[in-house]
Amino acid sequence: MKLASFNDGSRDGRLVVVSRDLTRCCAAGYIAPTLQHALDNWGSVAPRLEALYRDVEHQAVPCERFHEREALSPLPRAYQWADGSAYINHVALVRKARGAEVPESFYHDPLMYQGGSDGFLAPRQDIPLGDVAWGCDMEGEIACITDDVPMGVGKEDAAGHIKLLMLVNDVSLRGLIPGELAKGFGFFQSKPASAFSPVAVTPDELGEAWSGNVIHLPLMVDYNGEAFGRANAGVDATFSLADLVAHAAKTRALGAGTIIGSGTVSNQGPGGDPGKPVSEGGAGYSCIAEIRMIEHIASGEATTPFMKPGDTVRVEMRDKDGHSIFGAIEQTVVGV
Amino acid sequence: MKLASFNDGSRDGRLVVVSRDLTRCCAAGYIAPTLQHALDNWGSVAPRLEALYRDVEHQAVPCERFHEREALSPLPRAYQWADGSAYINHVALVRKARGAEVPESFYHDPLMYQGGSDGFLAPRQDIPLGDVAWGCDMEGEIACITDDVPMGVGKEDAAGHIKLLMLVNDVSLRGLIPGELAKGFGFFQSKPASAFSPVAVTPDELGEAWSGNVIHLPLMVDYNGEAFGRANAGVDATFSLADLVAHAAKTRALGAGTIIGSGTVSNQGPGGDPGKPVSEGGAGYSCIAEIRMIEHIASGEATTPFMKPGDTVRVEMRDKDGHSIFGAIEQTVVGV
Repeated sequence: MKLASFNDGSRDGRLVVVSRDLTRCCAAGYIAPTLQHALDNWGSVAPRLEALYRDVEHQAVPCERFHEREALSPLPRAYQWADGSAYINHVALVRKARGAEVPESFYHDPLMYQGGSDGFLAPRQDIPLGDVAWGCDMEGEIACITDDVPMGVGKEDAAGHIKLLMLVNDVSLRGLIPGELAKGFGFFQSKPASAFSPVAVTPDELGEAWSGNVIHLPLMVDYNGEAFGRANAGVDATFSLADLVAHAAKTRALGAGTIIGSGTVSNQGPGGDPGKPVSEGGAGYSCIAEIRMIEHIASGEATTPFMKPGDTVRVEMRDKDGHSIFGAIEQTVVGV
Repeated sequence: MKLASFNDGSRDGRLVVVSRDLTRCCAAGYIAPTLQHALDNWGSVAPRLEALYRDVEHQAVPCERFHEREALSPLPRAYQWADGSAYINHVALVRKARGAEVPESFYHDPLMYQGGSDGFLAPRQDIPLGDVAWGCDMEGEIACITDDVPMGVGKEDAAGHIKLLMLVNDVSLRGLIPGELAKGFGFFQSKPASAFSPVAVTPDELGEAWSGNVIHLPLMVDYNGEAFGRANAGVDATFSLADLVAHAAKTRALGAGTIIGSGTVSNQGPGGDPGKPVSEGGAGYSCIAEIRMIEHIASGEATTPFMKPGDTVRVEMRDKDGHSIFGAIEQTVVGV
């Protein structure tokens, strides 16, 4: 099924069930007022939402038109957002540009940071930027939402706790990252509010593209209207979403509504070389930092600038028939 | 006023107004069902809660007995928990033990990490520990809760967004910290669920002890029934809570119900030397890591072990007349 949080002016929006083709929706408030409420009671609520979804698909209930622009992020705010780094190629590029190796441990012990979750941007909301020198970048990623996950859950059991999937634009302020990481406590000011896709879907909506707890489809990232990234989220994924959920739960339980991200989707080029631009038949990039690293490795100088006011990013994923699965994140940077 | 979340079996508890002496409480559900709900609508809700608090104080409404053991953390789960490091002495000790200096920037640019907020332990709840080798430690701290804070707020305006104050035991797994920080993304597995004091209070409850956005009272930390820390939260505070709120909001707005922590309260001894144990008339320590650092500096070996199952910690703060302000955090480590 497909779920969205309609922007009704409230902090958490109101839960709607969305048709598979994203054209219609039906209010689900009589089952659960918000998506968080549904996740808090997923065992009893999900079957009722699934039944409503079937009715929506069969046009057996009155529906309203669904407009992606009216959707908030599926969880407009969440109790937890933790972002992993499943695509080590992304990490390797950053390190290669500064002449460093990827530690061997990164291939079995995932990188993960605790992100801010007190307020996410809507999928069509502007990205507020205080200073161009902060180096605003997008990061196209996959994310899942869990129900309650017990402390110490194994990877196998972790898979069963993945209830919904989304796309995310994990906004990053590259100019602030080196100074902040040098302090040793991880990201804080360098990771402002992220935006998620208009719709969250249950894994079964992916069909065969959901395999091994990874989505095997290209993540379509457009930058200023041009194809920028087409990296396949099923390729070069060192860790699955289930691996990342288990990592997050090693020393503590995870509350219902926890969002776990994949990190920037990134494919190696042929032969393990850095990827090529989409315009040259490559997988391209899901963030600007990667193309800058490749420029730096090639010529000693990164020439593609980070985002400035007016720049736009679009993140979407389509099924094998070309239909949008999650709706599109479409954002413009604005100065504030 | 004083507020608590009564454990009624729900995820967020039910909001009660607590008498100043912590003996009685009155259900506030007709004003706001939960503390998060109150914070979401603080401007209109707070005056009504204040009116109820006055009635509770005057015994003008029916009350029930308040038991600290029946309280959840005031926000049993939150949309944001970010912990600063206001007491640089704590940082300095850690660095001194390994022969490193404190960077000058730490005195004007606060350290802050994004903590997990999807589920906090109740103030009297056991601390689950999977492995003694994880090096379980307590950290006694002060924390504030904000309403909505705009991006880029100044320090002066930030003070007005501090709506409630609490104590916190920020549980840390010292054995996991070095490896995790070496990965560069900050704490994750090394910071399991924290516990907050049974009661959150508005700053005016502190009277003159609330000055400069710092609480000028000793934080009483007992370990296994012995006085362990009596560091004054008003001494050696390089940053105020308002400073930390402004730091957190530099690149993004903060949602209502954001919790910002002070970091481990830590006082220098006379002459700037490391502090002495409480038993020797010193301020003692708000965490075990500090006494271990002092042991290491003195003798080359840290002898006090971290917490093991059965060890207990108590964190409380009393006003100048000896009355408990927030109630007490009392926790026992249990193996799981």
